[in-house]
Amino acid sequence: MPIVQIDFFEGKTVEQKRVLAEKVTKAIAESLNCPETAVSIIMREMKTDNYAKAGRLWCDN
Amino acid sequence: MPIVQIDFFEGKTVEQKRVLAEKVTKAIAESLNCPETAVSIIMREMKTDNYAKAGRLWCDN
Amino acid sequence: MPIVQIDFFEGKTVEQKRVLAEKVTKAIAESLNCPETAVSIIMREMKTDNYAKAGRLWCDN
Amino acid sequence: MPIVQIDFFEGKTVEQKRVLAEKVTKAIAESLNCPETAVSIIMREMKTDNYAKAGRLWCDN
Amino acid sequence: MPIVQIDFFEGKTVEQKRVLAEKVTKAIAESLNCPETAVSIIMREMKTDNYAKAGRLWCDN
Amino acid sequence: MPIVQIDFFEGKTVEQKRVLAEKVTKAIAESLNCPETAVSIIMREMKTDNYAKAGRLWCDN
Repeated sequence: MPIVQIDFFEGKTVEQKRVLAEKVTKAIAESLNCPETAVSIIMREMKTDNYAKAGRLWCDN
Repeated sequence: MPIVQIDFFEGKTVEQKRVLAEKVTKAIAESLNCPETAVSIIMREMKTDNYAKAGRLWCDN
Repeated sequence: MPIVQIDFFEGKTVEQKRVLAEKVTKAIAESLNCPETAVSIIMREMKTDNYAKAGRLWCDN
Repeated sequence: MPIVQIDFFEGKTVEQKRVLAEKVTKAIAESLNCPETAVSIIMREMKTDNYAKAGRLWCDN
Repeated sequence: MPIVQIDFFEGKTVEQKRVLAEKVTKAIAESLNCPETAVSIIMREMKTDNYAKAGRLWCDN
Repeated sequence: MPIVQIDFFEGKTVEQKRVLAEKVTKAIAESLNCPETAVSIIMREMKTDNYAKAGRLWCDN
């Protein structure tokens, strides 16, 4: 705890996820005043035909 | 906001997801009285061995 | 299956949720070609200080 | 209802998921005093570069 | 990891949640072959007007 | 997109959530190379009897 779930589009590199993990963990630990070791992050990669905004699939934009 | 997450079995076409996005967005905007542009939808496709009902994997039915 | 999770701001009436349930269920059954009895919907009500867009709490808008 | 979502690392066999479904359903039915037929379980398989603990990707451990 | 999310109706006692935590953790550790210390469980309590099945709010049944 | 969900224990101030929103949004925008305006964050506050680690409710620690 805290437990974080992040949905984003596929196509990110492992290095981008590495930086994401470091930065988000630090951001949460600082703002919620908890140790970084307490933070878990689940990332979910999504295809652009699995997300819609305003009734429209992202792949159709 | 609103943010919608829908889990369903894999095997749907992009056209089915397109219609899903349109119809669900309209349904939410009408019932919650918000603009369609405010609605986000995340779809998650699932294999039948990743879902269980009544203690039984779906792929075993 | 399908299983739907919808996050929206608190303050909706039971009648609005009733209409939401009917309309979203119909929208999903029609587009994914499944029976309405198969659709489950979880609604989560959120306070405006528990949602942020663009780095800003909704209650600060 | 109840609806369960379980995130774990990929690489499990269908037999492991089968046992998971049986045991978790029984555990929930017994403790919450509900019929086993009411329990739905969604399993999500994750790559080790999509999970981080303490600011560090699991694949880097 | 594994991380579990369970949605159920409000009205359970702390003792029921205690038993749920023990039993579900054991069920997962045994079936996925991981230590019990690795299992996290988030429980979400829901009002009966925040869940719908087959297009119908649970509170209307 | 990206969409973030964060579960943490209740008892945080609005100011802590404000800082959380700012810092997490910046962390994600920088690491995934997307505009800050694209980031949505849902926060969920949890009672200590609704979280378990290692088979034990947090309120029992």
